[in-house]
Amino acid sequence: MTHTVPFVLEAWSRQRLQTVERCLDDWVSANLDTGAAPGAPADLVAAMRYAVLDGGKRLRPLLVLAAFEAVSGHRAQPSTAALRAACSVELIHAYSLVHDDMPCMDNDVLRRGKPTVHVQFGQASALLAGDALQAMAFELLTPSDGSVAPDVQARLCALLSRAAGSTGMAGGQAIDLASVGGALTEGALRHMHQLKTGALLRCSVLMGAACGGASALVIEALAQYGNAIGLAFQVVDDVLDVTADSATLGKTAGKDADRAKPTYVSLMGLARSRAYAAELLGQAHAALALAGLADTSPLGALADMVVHRSH
Amino acid sequence: MTHTVPFVLEAWSRQRLQTVERCLDDWVSANLDTGAAPGAPADLVAAMRYAVLDGGKRLRPLLVLAAFEAVSGHRAQPSTAALRAACSVELIHAYSLVHDDMPCMDNDVLRRGKPTVHVQFGQASALLAGDALQAMAFELLTPSDGSVAPDVQARLCALLSRAAGSTGMAGGQAIDLASVGGALTEGALRHMHQLKTGALLRCSVLMGAACGGASALVIEALAQYGNAIGLAFQVVDDVLDVTADSATLGKTAGKDADRAKPTYVSLMGLARSRAYAAELLGQAHAALALAGLADTSPLGALADMVVHRSH
Repeated sequence: MTHTVPFVLEAWSRQRLQTVERCLDDWVSANLDTGAAPGAPADLVAAMRYAVLDGGKRLRPLLVLAAFEAVSGHRAQPSTAALRAACSVELIHAYSLVHDDMPCMDNDVLRRGKPTVHVQFGQASALLAGDALQAMAFELLTPSDGSVAPDVQARLCALLSRAAGSTGMAGGQAIDLASVGGALTEGALRHMHQLKTGALLRCSVLMGAACGGASALVIEALAQYGNAIGLAFQVVDDVLDVTADSATLGKTAGKDADRAKPTYVSLMGLARSRAYAAELLGQAHAALALAGLADTSPLGALADMVVHRSH
Repeated sequence: MTHTVPFVLEAWSRQRLQTVERCLDDWVSANLDTGAAPGAPADLVAAMRYAVLDGGKRLRPLLVLAAFEAVSGHRAQPSTAALRAACSVELIHAYSLVHDDMPCMDNDVLRRGKPTVHVQFGQASALLAGDALQAMAFELLTPSDGSVAPDVQARLCALLSRAAGSTGMAGGQAIDLASVGGALTEGALRHMHQLKTGALLRCSVLMGAACGGASALVIEALAQYGNAIGLAFQVVDDVLDVTADSATLGKTAGKDADRAKPTYVSLMGLARSRAYAAELLGQAHAALALAGLADTSPLGALADMVVHRSH
């Protein structure tokens, strides 16, 4: 594809993120107990809002919307289904960070430059806020107002639950947990990351594609794209853990090395890790070319961003 | 309704529970990493199995199946949708117990007469197993094999996510947490329990009704039935906490009183609590009569069991 106007990811993202942030803000508070209509308790909603709002790169929502636009040909207003999908996957990501930061897991006190949820609200509230955020992801995907077709609702719930569960994110975290202090082969490390981070990134792309009504061939190509950027994301994360400082990362740098966690850098060294990330980026672009879609600029630019980011 | 053969809940339940136990056993292990096909890590699946299998009254699955039978007129094999719904609601219940028992919550070491999940597997594994069980509930509801119609999948996910989340179970637990050591009015106590326990019991009934294709009027009557038994369940729980011993309960008795948690017994005394449970049972039966269904014996008998149980 050639464009007369070059694609600028920042401008594209800024527009979409305004909508995503507003929807997250609205939807996370939509159930709040108002006194008039009994609903979610204010303390719990406060912890959920703290976990979700005002922070994060929102990579997953952007992937959902980019895939939706690539498949549907829309460029402007995302459909309600795509917006709900975008926010639901971010809720899953946010809940996983809340639980992951808890003392019995990574015991982290700093996240996105702020105290973590359990530091701010206590462990019990953090546990419950995470649990409620996971449920809310599926609430978002199943509106009763007719704005999302039932078969799309079902498909989105199928994709998200599998990416979040024992064969996805939670499964990957369990492997990660068991691997601390031990040695992993490159294959085992890849498997762990495919589940832990890759599944949800890939799912974001596939949810966007499902909202746009993609064909099986396109879905297959976009799944390959999702696999490549999912893995690249983690390789780059490992590189940044040793090359960036905590202020840039917004979280504690060097913590993986401190804990003798297996990483790509510890396994293949810095130079080879960087080369691997570049190779995966090439695979992502090749998959996009294979999809045969009219305009995949946002997806392509997001892949570049995943590999070239500084935090 | 008169029957020539009197309805025996125990025989009815035994048959259904065989199927439910077998399905839970199969489905919780279905994702297991076999080496050939990469899947869920064995450690995580072991903790999930421990949390779910071989224990519990399975009240929620039985409510799903009883409501399905009442609405559909079927009496024999439950539909795939009803079975999946029955198991999914039990997974949500099981995950909530795992998280609820953790040191940062109730810090319980005994559950169903066995060490709790975090005692057996460690806190991090308990946290992840609970998270993965919640996701798996939605996996169960969204099979890709055509066995459950997409609109039914969407409806079941909508019901379950709302019953589990911030306006349901997790919300109720947050209110419970905030209420320890404090005073609640009867209205506030009822609101807490409607969310904490009531929402999932009511949801079980409504999921069964959705699988059977109930009319709006029937759904309304069954929702009333669900509300009544949901509340009755908690009132009886509070009564048993002071009248039964730990061996009968399979969990630590007297713990609510020890922690100065507000309960129905502390609020209205033992005699009035028992009378209230009986009143709620009457409401449940009245709602069933209102539903105008041919045979509600299982639902009626389950309501009796909720109120007259000894553990």
